[in-house]
Amino acid sequence: MEKIVLDCDPGHDDAIAILLAAANPDIDLLGITTVAGNHTIENVTRNALSVCTVYGIDVPVARGSSRPLVIDQVIAEEIHGATGLDGPHLPPASFGLDPRHAVDFIIETVMENEPNTVTLVPVGPYTNIALAARKEPRIIERVKQVIVMGGSYTRGNITPAAEFNIYADPEAAHVVFSAAWDVTMIGLDLTQHQALATPELQERVRAIGGDISRFILDTWEFVHTTHSGLLDIPYPAIHDACCVAAVIDPTILTVEKADVRVELEGRWTKGQTVANFQSASGMRHFGGTASEQVDYRTNVAITLDWQKFADLIVDSAERLTYAKV
Amino acid sequence: MEKIVLDCDPGHDDAIAILLAAANPDIDLLGITTVAGNHTIENVTRNALSVCTVYGIDVPVARGSSRPLVIDQVIAEEIHGATGLDGPHLPPASFGLDPRHAVDFIIETVMENEPNTVTLVPVGPYTNIALAARKEPRIIERVKQVIVMGGSYTRGNITPAAEFNIYADPEAAHVVFSAAWDVTMIGLDLTQHQALATPELQERVRAIGGDISRFILDTWEFVHTTHSGLLDIPYPAIHDACCVAAVIDPTILTVEKADVRVELEGRWTKGQTVANFQSASGMRHFGGTASEQVDYRTNVAITLDWQKFADLIVDSAERLTYAKV
Amino acid sequence: MEKIVLDCDPGHDDAIAILLAAANPDIDLLGITTVAGNHTIENVTRNALSVCTVYGIDVPVARGSSRPLVIDQVIAEEIHGATGLDGPHLPPASFGLDPRHAVDFIIETVMENEPNTVTLVPVGPYTNIALAARKEPRIIERVKQVIVMGGSYTRGNITPAAEFNIYADPEAAHVVFSAAWDVTMIGLDLTQHQALATPELQERVRAIGGDISRFILDTWEFVHTTHSGLLDIPYPAIHDACCVAAVIDPTILTVEKADVRVELEGRWTKGQTVANFQSASGMRHFGGTASEQVDYRTNVAITLDWQKFADLIVDSAERLTYAKV
Amino acid sequence: MEKIVLDCDPGHDDAIAILLAAANPDIDLLGITTVAGNHTIENVTRNALSVCTVYGIDVPVARGSSRPLVIDQVIAEEIHGATGLDGPHLPPASFGLDPRHAVDFIIETVMENEPNTVTLVPVGPYTNIALAARKEPRIIERVKQVIVMGGSYTRGNITPAAEFNIYADPEAAHVVFSAAWDVTMIGLDLTQHQALATPELQERVRAIGGDISRFILDTWEFVHTTHSGLLDIPYPAIHDACCVAAVIDPTILTVEKADVRVELEGRWTKGQTVANFQSASGMRHFGGTASEQVDYRTNVAITLDWQKFADLIVDSAERLTYAKV
Repeated sequence: MEKIVLDCDPGHDDAIAILLAAANPDIDLLGITTVAGNHTIENVTRNALSVCTVYGIDVPVARGSSRPLVIDQVIAEEIHGATGLDGPHLPPASFGLDPRHAVDFIIETVMENEPNTVTLVPVGPYTNIALAARKEPRIIERVKQVIVMGGSYTRGNITPAAEFNIYADPEAAHVVFSAAWDVTMIGLDLTQHQALATPELQERVRAIGGDISRFILDTWEFVHTTHSGLLDIPYPAIHDACCVAAVIDPTILTVEKADVRVELEGRWTKGQTVANFQSASGMRHFGGTASEQVDYRTNVAITLDWQKFADLIVDSAERLTYAKV
Repeated sequence: MEKIVLDCDPGHDDAIAILLAAANPDIDLLGITTVAGNHTIENVTRNALSVCTVYGIDVPVARGSSRPLVIDQVIAEEIHGATGLDGPHLPPASFGLDPRHAVDFIIETVMENEPNTVTLVPVGPYTNIALAARKEPRIIERVKQVIVMGGSYTRGNITPAAEFNIYADPEAAHVVFSAAWDVTMIGLDLTQHQALATPELQERVRAIGGDISRFILDTWEFVHTTHSGLLDIPYPAIHDACCVAAVIDPTILTVEKADVRVELEGRWTKGQTVANFQSASGMRHFGGTASEQVDYRTNVAITLDWQKFADLIVDSAERLTYAKV
Repeated sequence: MEKIVLDCDPGHDDAIAILLAAANPDIDLLGITTVAGNHTIENVTRNALSVCTVYGIDVPVARGSSRPLVIDQVIAEEIHGATGLDGPHLPPASFGLDPRHAVDFIIETVMENEPNTVTLVPVGPYTNIALAARKEPRIIERVKQVIVMGGSYTRGNITPAAEFNIYADPEAAHVVFSAAWDVTMIGLDLTQHQALATPELQERVRAIGGDISRFILDTWEFVHTTHSGLLDIPYPAIHDACCVAAVIDPTILTVEKADVRVELEGRWTKGQTVANFQSASGMRHFGGTASEQVDYRTNVAITLDWQKFADLIVDSAERLTYAKV
Repeated sequence: MEKIVLDCDPGHDDAIAILLAAANPDIDLLGITTVAGNHTIENVTRNALSVCTVYGIDVPVARGSSRPLVIDQVIAEEIHGATGLDGPHLPPASFGLDPRHAVDFIIETVMENEPNTVTLVPVGPYTNIALAARKEPRIIERVKQVIVMGGSYTRGNITPAAEFNIYADPEAAHVVFSAAWDVTMIGLDLTQHQALATPELQERVRAIGGDISRFILDTWEFVHTTHSGLLDIPYPAIHDACCVAAVIDPTILTVEKADVRVELEGRWTKGQTVANFQSASGMRHFGGTASEQVDYRTNVAITLDWQKFADLIVDSAERLTYAKV
């Protein structure tokens, strides 16, 4: 079993990430930490508790950062609605918050577990992760890996250049991508184009029946409605769940090594993840920022095995549904 | 017939642009202006004269800017060799330079012709065009249009973010994209992936026979060899010729309207063309640089009708070959 | 008595700040927190304990951040020597560290004391303060004030534009200057030109005699020697102590209201504190960044009452010397 | 006699620069070129002709750039009024414009005169100078020197960081400061604080009597009125005339060698001239942009011999007044 801390801002696709983390037998979900992103910290924290309640799980949930490291706050209300998780019915939480701040929860969890056993899975802005790495730098060499949802090596979603999680806290993203840990970046190139809730997948989830099936379908329906006219995607993208899926089964992805830099200074490109692929190292050879040392540290996700991914979602929904009955 | 001034830095693909401009009956080539880019101004100017000599044409050739507007010079010797046009045999020029500076040649040509009749076709860094627009702003409303080779709405070639022509003079590119004229941007998304000298096209050119056929094939062979290991392209890209082709037959392209901004301040993205498509205007709606006025002014080329493009090249090579015999 | 937390990186002038904080009867020194800056966190923390031991005081000392929030680390070894406090004899510490991280020490101290009673006095890079404000935003309205050493409204010391404390962690400085608390900036304009250890002051300290007198004189002698050839200052600058002096006696300073912005993006100006004085608000009127809202929030120190300042130092040295005897 | 081309944007203080250039026997005024800055190109060009008419001189006046090289235009109407030279009576011009563009006038003048004989004196934004240097790079080694009004090594006037001439065209300023010619920068530190039209100087000019005396006094009176409330200067600053005075008598200034960089990327500091003085080279030694090569190329003016300066103005006013009678 793979131990993970899921750092999230639910958020519709976050709810599916929690689904996999809660239900899959290969995941040991040590805790959920929340971060302002898709919505305010109050709303995403309440949503995290409610989503756990829907799923019938009881894991530590620790509230985290209410705003980005350096820049002013931006939230994605247009996508996720006034509550941050509009659409499905959300019951009141059946349990309370962990008393610790998310930053301390992350630090203590990493330091108390064996080295190289805990995977951090940030699927909102990386504020908590950056604060934890700065407050306790020893976690950097102690975690097993960091698998992030965010970024893009082609185009963004909130701006032509930037993906939302990076744009919402670029300096935190810089901390994550520049630290000496093992990072996998699962960006829009994969999540927005390959990880979609197709009619086929929706039908399989519908066939399960019950509250959890209904909850999942309702999140997708809301996202589908709000996205129409905003983004050119045929079906709801299940961004965040890809990261948990990659912990469960690394072969679900193909990756390429790249030197990923977060643009912190551009006027039109702030928050862009600039990926310099090792396979195109000739590019460097004839220009670019020759004086900078290139470090092909990051695993950038390129392709997703959609069938395996869909199977994981259906399997998790089934497990929780049967467990509840 | 469409009147054009071809502003170039030959350069291998520039030579094919000159081919179309010289031979196609729908083009009235008013002159060629040169600019430092693929190589030094001395070399690209000598190459321009030699290429014209190979083709047996005698048009005004005016020497232009020896360096970029603001930044330090960068040239692409790794791609184009020590002379800027290594590979084919280049004869000495059979005629001399126009006495005017390229900037004055452009200004005078635009101002002496009827309004809305002259198309500027910059296929190197846009230094001459920017200097002309600043020295004589009235050309901005007097030209018919500007069709540029350069930029990308996804990834670059000299850096992960930037295409060479923009990277080599970003401030000049800003001048071109922000001026109130009709601009079409034909970038890497099209030229590097859709405008390739396939074996089929090479075979058709080979079948023509003669010096011009040989010259064209030699440029492609050299590019193919140097690109191997640098870029991940199966065949030589014929970037610059796409712009002349688009003057000859606008239906050869599909375009989308976009607000294109040149990143001048990014640490990793300097010289990137950030294209905000009108069709994705929802993007703006939930973030981005909301305070900036969006102006979907630029026509960004999306797809190329490769067969028409190939036909134009073969046709031009045949016309010049028969004319010479 | 004014309650303060002194956040420092001893550091020669830090030692004089500790002197005033330890000895002056109007100061209630709740604790000392350390931050990497003048030297590594290991060295400055050891130095903090040793300086307290020299002074014969026993206050909580909490170790803090080992590196800046976002950028790479830079230390000032050329000024402060290999240990960060070369020159005077430093005894081994007579007591141990507080178990808490400086960030938690700051948060808990502010939250446990009455609102508007605790003054934060950061005199190194502001990393701890920024992390505390981000981890627990409620401290921002709960502290009484923040009096920082750092910045300049004219010229810098580590670069022509930037002062060391800001340059070493510009993003942390941005957090401090942009938060809605009461900030006083005591910058180089004051500390480097008006707060000098003149021969007169040195003579008064020498007249006290004893170990503490010797320690103070040794710090000044070392700084004087290393500064020669580096900076154009006749006597050692006692930067950090100005902040504690301003807590003891606010009339020791004159201040002007200004909107202070930390430059985070400049190529030559990163870490500069750009002070827009309310008294020169006409400046805005004819240019500048008109679209930005101006907020004259920061008290920028302009002049120092040197005689009062010198008296405070002598008085503190005397008090500790007599107390020890 | 020193040959100069005066590149200006009259503008009140420009008129005094023209006075010295026109009247002083040690100056050979080869021509006046105009540039948009204090006001539009139309207004400053008309003003240049009118000022020459007031002074009774007939020199070539060539109209130049109507807007900056890269950025959008900003003018200083608040200082110079709706015409760019409000206040004094301005007669219609008694002569016409040189047919050449200022850029060509500068290039041809420099290339036609002996090497090292022509001094360029830009006292508005440096757009014309930059365009000339880019269009004909050979002028860079052929001019004798460039003496610019602009910049500051402490604080700005249009923003806290930037002086107007640099702020209005920072990229052009970069071209001027980075080119390999001999540059003297006379900035605000000198002009705004040391080159003032004191009551004593005004009285001396008044004593001359006549139209020119009246004209000069009227320009100062207008500036004095508009500056009140905007800037904290007791008397009108005679910025631009300092440059011509420095050509007439180099001993009127003290200068220090510095590496001057124009900030092109800062959010709060765009257009700032960052002066790294050779005399403070230790600064570099402990930080800063160590990887950049330092080049102490620019002569930065530090102090002005005010009495000599005032004498030059009075002398010039007298000469033109007597010549007219």
